[in-house]
Amino acid sequence: MTYQSTILTLFPDAFPGILGTSIIGRALENEIWSLEALDIRAFSDHKHRSVDDTPAGGGAGMVLRPDVVASAIDAVDRKDRPLIYLSPRGKPLSQARVRKLASDPGVILICGRFEGLDERVIEARGIEEVSIGDYILAGGEVAAMVLLEAVVRLLPGVAGNHDSLSEESFESGLLEYPHYTRPRVWEDRSIPDVLLSGDHGAVAKWRQEQSEAITKQRRPDIWEAWVKKSKAGKPD
Amino acid sequence: MTYQSTILTLFPDAFPGILGTSIIGRALENEIWSLEALDIRAFSDHKHRSVDDTPAGGGAGMVLRPDVVASAIDAVDRKDRPLIYLSPRGKPLSQARVRKLASDPGVILICGRFEGLDERVIEARGIEEVSIGDYILAGGEVAAMVLLEAVVRLLPGVAGNHDSLSEESFESGLLEYPHYTRPRVWEDRSIPDVLLSGDHGAVAKWRQEQSEAITKQRRPDIWEAWVKKSKAGKPD
Repeated sequence: MTYQSTILTLFPDAFPGILGTSIIGRALENEIWSLEALDIRAFSDHKHRSVDDTPAGGGAGMVLRPDVVASAIDAVDRKDRPLIYLSPRGKPLSQARVRKLASDPGVILICGRFEGLDERVIEARGIEEVSIGDYILAGGEVAAMVLLEAVVRLLPGVAGNHDSLSEESFESGLLEYPHYTRPRVWEDRSIPDVLLSGDHGAVAKWRQEQSEAITKQRRPDIWEAWVKKSKAGKPD
Repeated sequence: MTYQSTILTLFPDAFPGILGTSIIGRALENEIWSLEALDIRAFSDHKHRSVDDTPAGGGAGMVLRPDVVASAIDAVDRKDRPLIYLSPRGKPLSQARVRKLASDPGVILICGRFEGLDERVIEARGIEEVSIGDYILAGGEVAAMVLLEAVVRLLPGVAGNHDSLSEESFESGLLEYPHYTRPRVWEDRSIPDVLLSGDHGAVAKWRQEQSEAITKQRRPDIWEAWVKKSKAGKPD
């Protein structure tokens, strides 16, 4: 069954963009997922198809009108798909959420520009706000691409090898261990001996230790969550 | 002075992509920033311009060879620019870091594919790892676009009004307050009275209270950091 994505945007021509590349692009061609980019402007019945107006209370920038955004949303067949607005005020996207999204029949994504959406349309249409990170973009389009790329690569038949998915950062609750490949010695730096030992148990142990050490050092927040989970008696 | 970006990627044709759109695309045309996308494959002297090999110690996926990646890096004129590898193992990108990056002369971004880079080239070339969020992508290209879009919009002359930049989420240390625009009443929902009062002081107070309430509710992590900073006696 094709994963169905619908994007509401002022820049429909920006899609598929990077999503037409590599394994994600091939999956689009192979109809593992579909992409429908709708122009919000087409749903305006105002003069010059205007979509925005000045913020109530004053201040810089422009706000997308609630009536126009609602018309665009109401024109889409929801089909049990989550309705998400990419916004820095949203809940941070996590790999767990990405996995959950990949199990849905698809997703509807709203891309803001300017100062964003009128709060009333968010409330009236039950729009969920999701943030891809704690920084500000010029618009939601590249955030929508990030979300879709993360989700589509988990769909069955997209990534070649599902073993490689399960050992990645976050999937185990830890950051990933370091990788090495040929040549064995490069600029006087050798691949760690254990990785060349042929001892699968020793390799697995080393990788687990490396993952733990890197997570502890770089991301104390993730480390603490992992320790808590481990203590709760939930094994790998 | 033009902000100079160099991207090392296996998909140079994916650029500028979304970065050619809207204010970011206009800034590229106006030479406020420049974009050079170099094909890592062009720096391989292996058979069929191969760039990757199997992971030492076994496991799924492929790892980018250190010699090939180093050749690509060494061909770039650094010019005091940070050298960043987009990776989920990296330090999370923040708006503070985005501001810092926008004050540099430019940036060099390495986009991984497959299982990523050989750890030795990260060490040997002093590559910094930066993560745009706690989820996994198919490659670093869309992450590079996110980083560049966030940085470029802060360059002088790109966003129309710098007032609008200073009131955004994270810039004040809080999530942004809700926005409203015309019509005054929509689907029986009114714009809050205070925003129509013309009392600038009351509007500012309401917005600050809204920002605090939303941050406290949605992002306790950001809220705690803000309270700590406020208590340290640093006023707005």
